[in-house]
Amino acid sequence: MTQRTTILLSESEFSLRLSAVAREMRSASVDTMVLTDSANLFYLTGRVFCGWAVVNVSGTESSALFFVRRPTGLEGCVAVRKPEDIPSHIKFGQKVALELDTASYSTVRRLKRAFGLEAEPADASAVMRAVRAVKTPAEIAMIRRSAERHERVYQMVPKLFHEGMTDLELQIEIERVSRLEGSLGQFRISGDTMEIYMGNVLAGNNADNPTPYDFAMGGEGISPSLPVGANGTTIEEGSTVMVDMNGNFTGYMTDMTRVYSLGSISDKAMRAHQCSVDICAEFSRRARPGVAASDLYEMAAEMAREAGLEPYFMGHRQKAAFVGHGVGIEINESPVIAPRSKNILAEGNVIALEPKFVIPGTGAVGIENTYLITADGAECLTNAPEQIINLQ
Amino acid sequence: MTQRTTILLSESEFSLRLSAVAREMRSASVDTMVLTDSANLFYLTGRVFCGWAVVNVSGTESSALFFVRRPTGLEGCVAVRKPEDIPSHIKFGQKVALELDTASYSTVRRLKRAFGLEAEPADASAVMRAVRAVKTPAEIAMIRRSAERHERVYQMVPKLFHEGMTDLELQIEIERVSRLEGSLGQFRISGDTMEIYMGNVLAGNNADNPTPYDFAMGGEGISPSLPVGANGTTIEEGSTVMVDMNGNFTGYMTDMTRVYSLGSISDKAMRAHQCSVDICAEFSRRARPGVAASDLYEMAAEMAREAGLEPYFMGHRQKAAFVGHGVGIEINESPVIAPRSKNILAEGNVIALEPKFVIPGTGAVGIENTYLITADGAECLTNAPEQIINLQ
Repeated sequence: MTQRTTILLSESEFSLRLSAVAREMRSASVDTMVLTDSANLFYLTGRVFCGWAVVNVSGTESSALFFVRRPTGLEGCVAVRKPEDIPSHIKFGQKVALELDTASYSTVRRLKRAFGLEAEPADASAVMRAVRAVKTPAEIAMIRRSAERHERVYQMVPKLFHEGMTDLELQIEIERVSRLEGSLGQFRISGDTMEIYMGNVLAGNNADNPTPYDFAMGGEGISPSLPVGANGTTIEEGSTVMVDMNGNFTGYMTDMTRVYSLGSISDKAMRAHQCSVDICAEFSRRARPGVAASDLYEMAAEMAREAGLEPYFMGHRQKAAFVGHGVGIEINESPVIAPRSKNILAEGNVIALEPKFVIPGTGAVGIENTYLITADGAECLTNAPEQIINLQ
Repeated sequence: MTQRTTILLSESEFSLRLSAVAREMRSASVDTMVLTDSANLFYLTGRVFCGWAVVNVSGTESSALFFVRRPTGLEGCVAVRKPEDIPSHIKFGQKVALELDTASYSTVRRLKRAFGLEAEPADASAVMRAVRAVKTPAEIAMIRRSAERHERVYQMVPKLFHEGMTDLELQIEIERVSRLEGSLGQFRISGDTMEIYMGNVLAGNNADNPTPYDFAMGGEGISPSLPVGANGTTIEEGSTVMVDMNGNFTGYMTDMTRVYSLGSISDKAMRAHQCSVDICAEFSRRARPGVAASDLYEMAAEMAREAGLEPYFMGHRQKAAFVGHGVGIEINESPVIAPRSKNILAEGNVIALEPKFVIPGTGAVGIENTYLITADGAECLTNAPEQIINLQ
């Protein structure tokens, strides 16, 4: 039995999501969970608000109540001014979970006091990470809609290019057509110190500039306050430009990378790109429910090694420690395709695989696709042509 | 005496910033402060990296060491893999401060363990908020450079408009010219739940849609995952479009709002706009070191009341609780111009004042300027024409 407080979701969709949350809460022995992170509230209610969702689980029963500071007048919610107002409206269970990975220390400390929690709170971030890793059919439909528009944007890239253009100028034109196609722009990333604006367009040797951020690729950027991505490099004959632009058209993102060249590029770069395409093909054959994420990473790394491309795999001067990641409301969801990942693939996972190479003298090559894990295997959702497109 | 580990700043600039940090640490009785927030690292070093800055103060001495995970090979830094590696390199003082407002609960808990802290950490967020409220001459120079480009973008707005355009279409064209002028795009906001993409363009009655976020103005947005700003409203005769776009051209932001109309608008809207211009003029006369921020809020609110415009001041269906805010690396710095603000203005503050009105049937009116507080008073840094510009 669920209480009806759906805000924007249909009753059946809300019920489905609440069941998934309750299942993970039970498995973590959590009785009450308080959410305030925008991505988690969006998952549970279908919209972002400023406030708190309180989910209670007791035996086979589960219920949720939404306490809202802003916007005013949201239906199906309890209007409150501060978290201290919540306990008079709802009884908390024994073990309470708070979002320890996304809420600040000050916020958690305040909630602990407001709710009279004496014990250390359980971790709602881990619960919600597990829940959100498995997408519902409605979420998958949103992701498919993003993928369609994302593809349309990538098809326009050759038309946006003109000779003498820099990486940044090309990126700005892609940003514009993305927005005209309905992109929200916002690149949602979990984690205290992750930032990027709208995506990453990397030309030539700029791909080999290391970045502070935990992205697959780097780039110098145009300011030391945001040292990632395009840096004003002119797109030159014999080099590549890698386009990895945000696909957030619905609040659910797809992640897709394609490579363009100006004229022909080195054999090594062509081989590396083909290796990436092959890794993706192999992934789509092997990835299915029950497969270990670490095995899929090993498969990718092994294919790069066998091709003699290890020095360039996932970066050259600085390497990324993963080859794929879950994607949905945020760009870095579960499962993570990394050497020591403990994730096991499940039906409903949506995974961006990005086996990429940085070839000094040429630039970045390789593709990224977003895959849906079904009972039968991996379905590719991002279907722009995978080969390098010559802009000349 | 300071240890020389400046990364990107000149030695004298680094020394100035470290002195300011040490002064606030002493006044908070903090001996050691550990920073990992990107905005704070950018302040202290002139660049963002993934890692930790450890600042020690002992008597009149102060020093800083930088521990860096990424990017690899940063000069003047100690390369580490994890925070647990730090204590073998540097001795911590008695009272240690961590960033309690920006670091997640998990992060702070891990740092407490890594550094063997038994006592509750002091609050580095408060220390850095106070430090960053007073800009150095080098920071002010960056802000001036942002202001110049920001003005150039706003001068282009009338040329970007065509009849039949929606708020969103106009915003997309402003985004593009901003980026071509060198905007980083990134809208940096402190706070767990604040998000916006590149700025806010509000046409007609969409200005009256309440938002979850703690911004001066609202708007429905184009997705319930980011419910703020432009929503596809066509810019119509007799209505206004308010442009409040990001001015982050240097890592330091200016904040500026201007209003455009299609044809003539109601007298009430014209009066409200003039009231905003008058409030800004009065602010620039009264704001100087030593003045209480709450008095400046009261001055603004009183002028709105006297003009009979209180129902529309700082929103209509939903009201913002402030009329101005510090701005610099982030959009919501100290001081805050709000009724219960305890801030006292100081030389070197940079403050965005945004007395705005939402007039049902017309839209949002009012301006926003960024002011530098000098010994002699407030200097306006954002000098685009303040009157409503008719797009017809």
